[in-house]
Amino acid sequence: MKRLFVIKIGGNVIDHSQALKRFLSDIAAITEQKIIVHGGGKIATNMSAKLGIETRMVDGRRITDANTLQVVTMVYGGLINKTIVAGLQALGCNALGMTGADAGIIKAHKREHPTLDYGFVGDIDHVETAPLRLLLDHGITPVIAPLTSTATNDSTTVGATMLNTNADTMASMLASALAAEYAGYEVGLLYCFEKQGVLAAIDDEASVIPRITFQEYQILKERGVIAKGMLPKMENAFAALRQGVSSVRICHSEQIIEATQDMTTVGSCLSLE
Amino acid sequence: MKRLFVIKIGGNVIDHSQALKRFLSDIAAITEQKIIVHGGGKIATNMSAKLGIETRMVDGRRITDANTLQVVTMVYGGLINKTIVAGLQALGCNALGMTGADAGIIKAHKREHPTLDYGFVGDIDHVETAPLRLLLDHGITPVIAPLTSTATNDSTTVGATMLNTNADTMASMLASALAAEYAGYEVGLLYCFEKQGVLAAIDDEASVIPRITFQEYQILKERGVIAKGMLPKMENAFAALRQGVSSVRICHSEQIIEATQDMTTVGSCLSLE
Repeated sequence: MKRLFVIKIGGNVIDHSQALKRFLSDIAAITEQKIIVHGGGKIATNMSAKLGIETRMVDGRRITDANTLQVVTMVYGGLINKTIVAGLQALGCNALGMTGADAGIIKAHKREHPTLDYGFVGDIDHVETAPLRLLLDHGITPVIAPLTSTATNDSTTVGATMLNTNADTMASMLASALAAEYAGYEVGLLYCFEKQGVLAAIDDEASVIPRITFQEYQILKERGVIAKGMLPKMENAFAALRQGVSSVRICHSEQIIEATQDMTTVGSCLSLE
Repeated sequence: MKRLFVIKIGGNVIDHSQALKRFLSDIAAITEQKIIVHGGGKIATNMSAKLGIETRMVDGRRITDANTLQVVTMVYGGLINKTIVAGLQALGCNALGMTGADAGIIKAHKREHPTLDYGFVGDIDHVETAPLRLLLDHGITPVIAPLTSTATNDSTTVGATMLNTNADTMASMLASALAAEYAGYEVGLLYCFEKQGVLAAIDDEASVIPRITFQEYQILKERGVIAKGMLPKMENAFAALRQGVSSVRICHSEQIIEATQDMTTVGSCLSLE
């Protein structure tokens, strides 16, 4: 069966030019169809600081007021997205940068929360796979920034507003939608970042947990072995498996090629049972 | 014969939310295939100022050092491009934002000048029409930011750098390439901005010159009637006509629908003879 990979790359990798170079040349070497989803929070935080805009995070999520929305639209949709696209193009990989708004691939709504105003933060309602398939079938690699949009009646905008959207969730939902609708393909989801995988001891890169079932995850979470920012990533990962994604791997950005070639010996491999 | 329009929209229109709203709803109402090319220099200048980056212009062209390149990549490729895309999507127009780097649609090189270093400014070598046709043929409207890229050996970048590229020239070269390769289509080029057309008296909006041949343009240029920023626009316009573009119109952004329906009574219509 043919394989398609959704590859999420974290902001810490993007922020280091040598790590990014390695990542891009590895991506360009993957012969299967692939979709890249990138973060970039740290760069957005730096740009906000330069512009005198305070960054407020709650449980790892950025509170996105109008000024912050402008920053993330510029940094994610412009700076980071085009750096990745131009880098891949120079390596012969026909990349095309997008946000969830472009070609209407992701429909979202502004998050509503009973006690907290996240501001311009989007939760995903629906992924439209047809434009992605059109691109993939013509040898084009979509590179997707963590932004969506929603129609709005706000008189100060132009009929729509962009929404800041979590990149891990976006990767999970893209992989799930493609798994459901992409007949004849196995969809693999890779979360790539600056660590070797899910670690049993946070400071010990050798403590990678090679296989984690959902049941084991519950135990590791209770024990506090898996905690903080890794929790939503794990939830997103298991959600993708429940939606029909064939394999989910959390691994180092330098292990992408091995992870796509052999899904068992690199990083942490997640399964439902 | 079927028609395809390349529509350049100037930065002053983008900068005014009411004018932009009107422009977007007009674009969404055009039933023919269309490609939008946008500017945004004024917004880039404002963002540069906020970041403490000095803006240097020579003959209306922005000197683009590394910091300025970062700003235009953010502002053109991110902020403005996604504002237009999200706005069109909310109006039911299936827009997809791109730069010249995306899907490899425009190949450029860094400008070399005997006495002046423009910095990261790109001159266009080639337009690859196949990805644009793929999108257009599937009902997708490309929205193109005035940025290109080139491969580089610079060790500080990731194998490529973005290049700041003139939007008028980009629109002209896109229209020319499409006219040459898009069999069965008439390609029209529209330059839309905040004035009624090419004016005989710069402060009199009623002084629109309705038809201008290349010969008449030479005379108007000698007399100083057409001057400054209008000169490169005119050169780009006549270049497109020489390359087989069927019609070129310079008009107000509020006249787009009339201009696409009837190419003779709105704004300034250019012809080679």
